[in-house]
Amino acid sequence: MNMFTENTARLLITCEDRPGIVQAVSSFLYHQGANITALDQYATEAQGGQYFMRVEFELDHLATRLDTLTSTFGKNVADKYAMEWKLNSVSDVKKVGILVSKVDHALLELLWRHSRGSLPCEITQVISNHETLRDKVERFGIPFHVVPVDKDNKVEAYAKIDEMMQGNDLLVLARYMQILSEDFVEKWPQKIINIHHSFLPAFVGANPYKQAHEKGVKLIGATAHYVTADLDQGPIIEQDVERVSHDYSIEQLRELGEDVERNVLARAVRWHLEDRVIVDGNKTIVFD
Amino acid sequence: MNMFTENTARLLITCEDRPGIVQAVSSFLYHQGANITALDQYATEAQGGQYFMRVEFELDHLATRLDTLTSTFGKNVADKYAMEWKLNSVSDVKKVGILVSKVDHALLELLWRHSRGSLPCEITQVISNHETLRDKVERFGIPFHVVPVDKDNKVEAYAKIDEMMQGNDLLVLARYMQILSEDFVEKWPQKIINIHHSFLPAFVGANPYKQAHEKGVKLIGATAHYVTADLDQGPIIEQDVERVSHDYSIEQLRELGEDVERNVLARAVRWHLEDRVIVDGNKTIVFD
Amino acid sequence: MNMFTENTARLLITCEDRPGIVQAVSSFLYHQGANITALDQYATEAQGGQYFMRVEFELDHLATRLDTLTSTFGKNVADKYAMEWKLNSVSDVKKVGILVSKVDHALLELLWRHSRGSLPCEITQVISNHETLRDKVERFGIPFHVVPVDKDNKVEAYAKIDEMMQGNDLLVLARYMQILSEDFVEKWPQKIINIHHSFLPAFVGANPYKQAHEKGVKLIGATAHYVTADLDQGPIIEQDVERVSHDYSIEQLRELGEDVERNVLARAVRWHLEDRVIVDGNKTIVFD
Amino acid sequence: MNMFTENTARLLITCEDRPGIVQAVSSFLYHQGANITALDQYATEAQGGQYFMRVEFELDHLATRLDTLTSTFGKNVADKYAMEWKLNSVSDVKKVGILVSKVDHALLELLWRHSRGSLPCEITQVISNHETLRDKVERFGIPFHVVPVDKDNKVEAYAKIDEMMQGNDLLVLARYMQILSEDFVEKWPQKIINIHHSFLPAFVGANPYKQAHEKGVKLIGATAHYVTADLDQGPIIEQDVERVSHDYSIEQLRELGEDVERNVLARAVRWHLEDRVIVDGNKTIVFD
Repeated sequence: MNMFTENTARLLITCEDRPGIVQAVSSFLYHQGANITALDQYATEAQGGQYFMRVEFELDHLATRLDTLTSTFGKNVADKYAMEWKLNSVSDVKKVGILVSKVDHALLELLWRHSRGSLPCEITQVISNHETLRDKVERFGIPFHVVPVDKDNKVEAYAKIDEMMQGNDLLVLARYMQILSEDFVEKWPQKIINIHHSFLPAFVGANPYKQAHEKGVKLIGATAHYVTADLDQGPIIEQDVERVSHDYSIEQLRELGEDVERNVLARAVRWHLEDRVIVDGNKTIVFD
Repeated sequence: MNMFTENTARLLITCEDRPGIVQAVSSFLYHQGANITALDQYATEAQGGQYFMRVEFELDHLATRLDTLTSTFGKNVADKYAMEWKLNSVSDVKKVGILVSKVDHALLELLWRHSRGSLPCEITQVISNHETLRDKVERFGIPFHVVPVDKDNKVEAYAKIDEMMQGNDLLVLARYMQILSEDFVEKWPQKIINIHHSFLPAFVGANPYKQAHEKGVKLIGATAHYVTADLDQGPIIEQDVERVSHDYSIEQLRELGEDVERNVLARAVRWHLEDRVIVDGNKTIVFD
Repeated sequence: MNMFTENTARLLITCEDRPGIVQAVSSFLYHQGANITALDQYATEAQGGQYFMRVEFELDHLATRLDTLTSTFGKNVADKYAMEWKLNSVSDVKKVGILVSKVDHALLELLWRHSRGSLPCEITQVISNHETLRDKVERFGIPFHVVPVDKDNKVEAYAKIDEMMQGNDLLVLARYMQILSEDFVEKWPQKIINIHHSFLPAFVGANPYKQAHEKGVKLIGATAHYVTADLDQGPIIEQDVERVSHDYSIEQLRELGEDVERNVLARAVRWHLEDRVIVDGNKTIVFD
Repeated sequence: MNMFTENTARLLITCEDRPGIVQAVSSFLYHQGANITALDQYATEAQGGQYFMRVEFELDHLATRLDTLTSTFGKNVADKYAMEWKLNSVSDVKKVGILVSKVDHALLELLWRHSRGSLPCEITQVISNHETLRDKVERFGIPFHVVPVDKDNKVEAYAKIDEMMQGNDLLVLARYMQILSEDFVEKWPQKIINIHHSFLPAFVGANPYKQAHEKGVKLIGATAHYVTADLDQGPIIEQDVERVSHDYSIEQLRELGEDVERNVLARAVRWHLEDRVIVDGNKTIVFD
């Protein structure tokens, strides 16, 4: 896990698997004068499989050279291999908007980690459907807005949220207890991360801790995933669990579960911000 | 976790929750001259809830006094509180029969732990629907029998297995890849433990590692549960998980998962043998 | 894990192990009209061993009956068995003072858990040897005081802290980077909990993350323990670890380790507040 | 985690860190017609740091081309960067000798994993200082030899073991309760893996479970490390822990700890066999 400088860049690549990709990418970077500081790759097993690559490199004077580097890479390497790709400078800090309802644990974990410098992003604003958390958010110096949502104003509400969130690179649902409209979700593909309070695919839908209690499971968990139009079915980024026993009430499951949720969400958001996650259909590649 | 002697006994109690039960049981034992070495209790939260208790105690000359102790406890205490209960001497070693198909990991873990003295039981026999594991079982000095099962002989096959297993206190399905008949299951209530190769209730049914691979989960697990007529729905005794990543093939998920399975099954069987598990509807109380 | 009411009390007992203790305690409580809701016991193995017990019970009108209950128990039961014991009403909320230096993670975890009602105590004040964290503490509505400590004023400084902390039931060192004087420690026996940033007894002393980095360990941990005059040697209450690899810098070990620290400390403090911890020489009994 | 074929090779490299290494290695392999299937790298942070690389690749007709490939790589790439390196074909199965005393858990785990194909090596023989485990080893079809060691015959004993083990690539101490002579250890540099029954550096030396019991730790662990002349101080390959509580006797700590030991040792040996471990002074780089 490298330390980053203003000359650090990251390149994410998806393409058809074939020989020579590492060679092509590393030769390109070498001849540009870059030093590769991290390189991860993965290829799916199937014939005609997909290939995924993440490269982190240092290049002197990155800021002034990034545009040329990008266009040259596209022409000389990416086109040849029909790559989907993106090249980011670590200095181009990503913008993150947060949606939340009334419970604070996931939100505060993100705000606190951000305030101590361990979430590399700018948190632009927090939007809630309730006033409850205004004070806790504003203490961190972050704007807080309320957009009420009820069954009659969904279209307008999500249109407004979409408008307010323009310019963000990522939306995080830090326990936002509303189901986003399909329309909204399609506008933010692979750009919304949700924390679900169960070990998916177990206990989809409402009240997972109640479901877990009724089923008598011995572990409870949480799942961070990208949001798609299929509720609770988007690509999983991270999961974790904690051990429980028969004598946990639903309330105690919830309390312990919230500790899992905030850690799982924080890891998933950080990995996304560090360009460690690539979506492959309904799954993710995570180069952590 | 106490060491056991030939004078150790265990009392398991389920009854309606009301004041005075601890006092009644401990006074009874005290006046019999017993020394309580472990005591666990649990009461469900609901009004008119259920009460569960496990007591381990030492009593001199237990063997000769057990019958009288049992009948006196029934008359003087259990009847008064309408208890369901059982009282066992640790010296009355439980008899266990194992059912297995072709894969050996769960079976060998049980046989090895038994051979080193850490599964307190007698393993009477292993029955399989295949010859595959005969040699590995017989090396441990344990009888191995084959009862073939196919779609046409299920009634006879399960009748035969039921007959052969008579006298056992517990049956363990150590990856037995046949679905037991409802009739068979009803003859062995709360006396059959199965290991399922997923974190139930996720991935019920066939090929859980394939399902896990397709879903892209980041943890894989295993679940030991009592077998009921509802496939994969019986009361859960123990579960555990291991972390995996995108680059695990189905085969690699299976290999890692088998390590989880054997540990989860061994713990569940041991807890059952030590009278630590009480079934409460579709859930278990585990006093571990 | 029971829910508590204003009628919940807890009884902690240490005495020489002999038969009849459970019976004596449960009979006493039964005849007072109490209902035992949790009971844990432990006896050391040695001959002439020690016996430890924790009982949680409900008694109507506890507040008005607590004094009589306490004196009667002392006379009728505790004296007979030469018990060390304490009997607390859950309603008598414990008072906690916190000592901290400059880093905020452990402190904020405690303040946040307290603010959401999951640390059952009153946090009376935070004392630091630096101004750094004033704002973060006062936002929670908790008094913050600075008592500078340097090599020349230790006696006065600790005398002042001792005086300011009078009336508290527990002191928590949430990363207080000063070594308390022996004199101070002796005034607060089993009443100071410290979080050490290593898996003790590995890496005692200064800079444990640097030590861990140099040694190349594959897990880093944290330890919450009672403070005694022997630095880093007091009875351990709780420990946990996280997996790391060769590519963690000291700074990254520290960042991950701080997550372990805050969870371990929060659990230890909570268990102490819930009267779940009994000290036995240089070790603890934790009835969690 | 790739599946391996007879055309899979692995290249391990250590050299001074400088730009262009990935490019040089991947270009070489590309022009030889190889397909890189895994690539890991790590550079120490310090100025003038060290660089470590592991590459897995497929090359048609590897067996007949390996010698040429090796000499060409040496001349064209390795010499230029002053690399320490090795290039292995996965088909050249490594030879492993095991040393053991009387307890069987670590040994049986290795033999069982080997027998099901999940330890990629040939186990050539087991040498013990006791007869105890002969039967269990020979059942797996593996030669078992006894070389008694006492305080008077150490020189001869280790000379004999060294002679008998000639031709092996790795020695595994699967709970061998003798301290190897310095002379012996120096003949097998980074070629002896030991399992220590504690979370090193805590509890070095004898009776770690007794030490852990006396200290009252809440986690017990195990450590697999390369053996050096400094007892219990060699480079750590893998560690893990399990949670325990006050009521574990030394014997119960040992029993649970043995489960940790066998898993930790099995992982360390497998990683070594898959060329995933590089020693860097007193630490290891593990590309798992």
